Amino acid sequence: MSRPDIRGYLDEKRRLVEAALLRYIPTENPPLADHVRAMRYSLLAGGKRVRPILCLAAAEAAGDETFSPELVLPCACALECIHTYSLIHDDLPAMDNDELRRGQPTNHVVFGEAAAILAGDGLLTLAFELLSDPALTAVPAERSLRVIHLIARAAGPAGMVGGQVLDLAAEGRPVSFAELRAIHSRKTGALITASVEAGALLAGADPAGLAALTRYGEGIGLAFQIVDDLLNVEGSAEQLGKAAGSDAARHKATYPAFFGVEETRKKAAEAVDMALEALKPFDRKADPLRDLARYILERKR
Amino acid sequence: MSRPDIRGYLDEKRRLVEAALLRYIPTENPPLADHVRAMRYSLLAGGKRVRPILCLAAAEAAGDETFSPELVLPCACALECIHTYSLIHDDLPAMDNDELRRGQPTNHVVFGEAAAILAGDGLLTLAFELLSDPALTAVPAERSLRVIHLIARAAGPAGMVGGQVLDLAAEGRPVSFAELRAIHSRKTGALITASVEAGALLAGADPAGLAALTRYGEGIGLAFQIVDDLLNVEGSAEQLGKAAGSDAARHKATYPAFFGVEETRKKAAEAVDMALEALKPFDRKADPLRDLARYILERKR
Repeated sequence: MSRPDIRGYLDEKRRLVEAALLRYIPTENPPLADHVRAMRYSLLAGGKRVRPILCLAAAEAAGDETFSPELVLPCACALECIHTYSLIHDDLPAMDNDELRRGQPTNHVVFGEAAAILAGDGLLTLAFELLSDPALTAVPAERSLRVIHLIARAAGPAGMVGGQVLDLAAEGRPVSFAELRAIHSRKTGALITASVEAGALLAGADPAGLAALTRYGEGIGLAFQIVDDLLNVEGSAEQLGKAAGSDAARHKATYPAFFGVEETRKKAAEAVDMALEALKPFDRKADPLRDLARYILERKR
Repeated sequence: MSRPDIRGYLDEKRRLVEAALLRYIPTENPPLADHVRAMRYSLLAGGKRVRPILCLAAAEAAGDETFSPELVLPCACALECIHTYSLIHDDLPAMDNDELRRGQPTNHVVFGEAAAILAGDGLLTLAFELLSDPALTAVPAERSLRVIHLIARAAGPAGMVGGQVLDLAAEGRPVSFAELRAIHSRKTGALITASVEAGALLAGADPAGLAALTRYGEGIGLAFQIVDDLLNVEGSAEQLGKAAGSDAARHKATYPAFFGVEETRKKAAEAVDMALEALKPFDRKADPLRDLARYILERKR
């Protein structure tokens, strides 16, 4: 369903973001060299760059002809720093104790636990350094300040950190659908929605445009989580299709465990439809956002 | 040497800051209640509130009659959140593995390691939420943005996080005086100086005033670190006085290990003199800063 050029768009933006990340996080002399290496290791471990690309595409959609989407590059990179920090800390032995991510050893396996905690702390703090750096961007201070506030809220106890707290608290016990929604929307949805809002705000979106893009962000945030659940259970999709409902809910809660695979796919498609509907008032400048919504639905990883 | 009313000033500001912290970090319903409890536990564990009080006093010194120092209260609290997060993470088993702080069990001992990591992450993120909250303060956005940037730099890899990296890398091997200075200035000095600068900037300090207050901040930052070292070795002060120099440097590096106790005391006093010298152009509005410099030199904890 995707227009043929979404791959090209994604590749181009991914390269833009990765080059900027390397610029913004320069190598250091020893003994800080290892710290930078640890941050870069996870930052450059082959992520899809969904959040920074959404931020760039939202800025394209909301900005007028005079606005260059590159003005949001520091913000786009800050979002990736925050996302990466959350992965590093979530993987720690005291948390989810994961030794592999995207087929590679996790940060603490390679660099040790102390260095991994500090790499996460460093990336989270660097994100706010990037967001507030007057040398990197030329948008009005009011806009930057609003963006910092919404990203901090999406990342903190009201968002991502709170989501991880809820996730750990839910471990090993049955979880209601309302709880699953709360975990999902804080752990993943909040920062994805914030990525879209941040791009829109920095580009100068008016209140109506911002509200529409927020609805878009909520729709794709939800779709992203549902598809994540689908990809996670794909191996055992058939059984889950049968064991849907209360039985499956006793295991790690997922959309397919509640609704079965077919119904879950429908829900993901509905969330994307909601996102596309919100883009109705926008012209062709929002085409990358439309393509991204479909990409999120159809992605295989 | 302190004017008799510094105790009263400190108590008043401490109460102001602690009341604001409770307002800014409201209790939550379960299951996030435990997360808030973990953040508040360390935040309210009887700190001296040096950073927030410096921020408030610097704003008093730099602001004109129309400026209310309460406008910097969110920033003052953000500084305490960042300081507290760094203590929680530094105490973790993978880091310094400390079970007691200020005579109380450390965060991870009470709440578990995962909750302590998340309490730290939450406090660090909340700090930037407070710094950017338009509902909490009414200073121009440009000022807030500059303050966010300087605090993020002081907290991140170029400051506190970098200092902890250096500190861990120095463990169990001889450390040169240059290394000790680098660890000190990043781990402690950077955020103390930033606290003074942030208050001054928010209050609208002009470039000359800001430069003077930065020198003040550097002086008391250095004095604070030196006095910390003195307080830490106080038990074995006599031996250290004798074993000063290269021998003592093989143990955990401190000022007294390099210079002996007497010479170290002199260096602390010199740093405070430097700080007081920087305040020369300021009128009586800077008296609390003058008293704070002397307090930092004479403090017993």
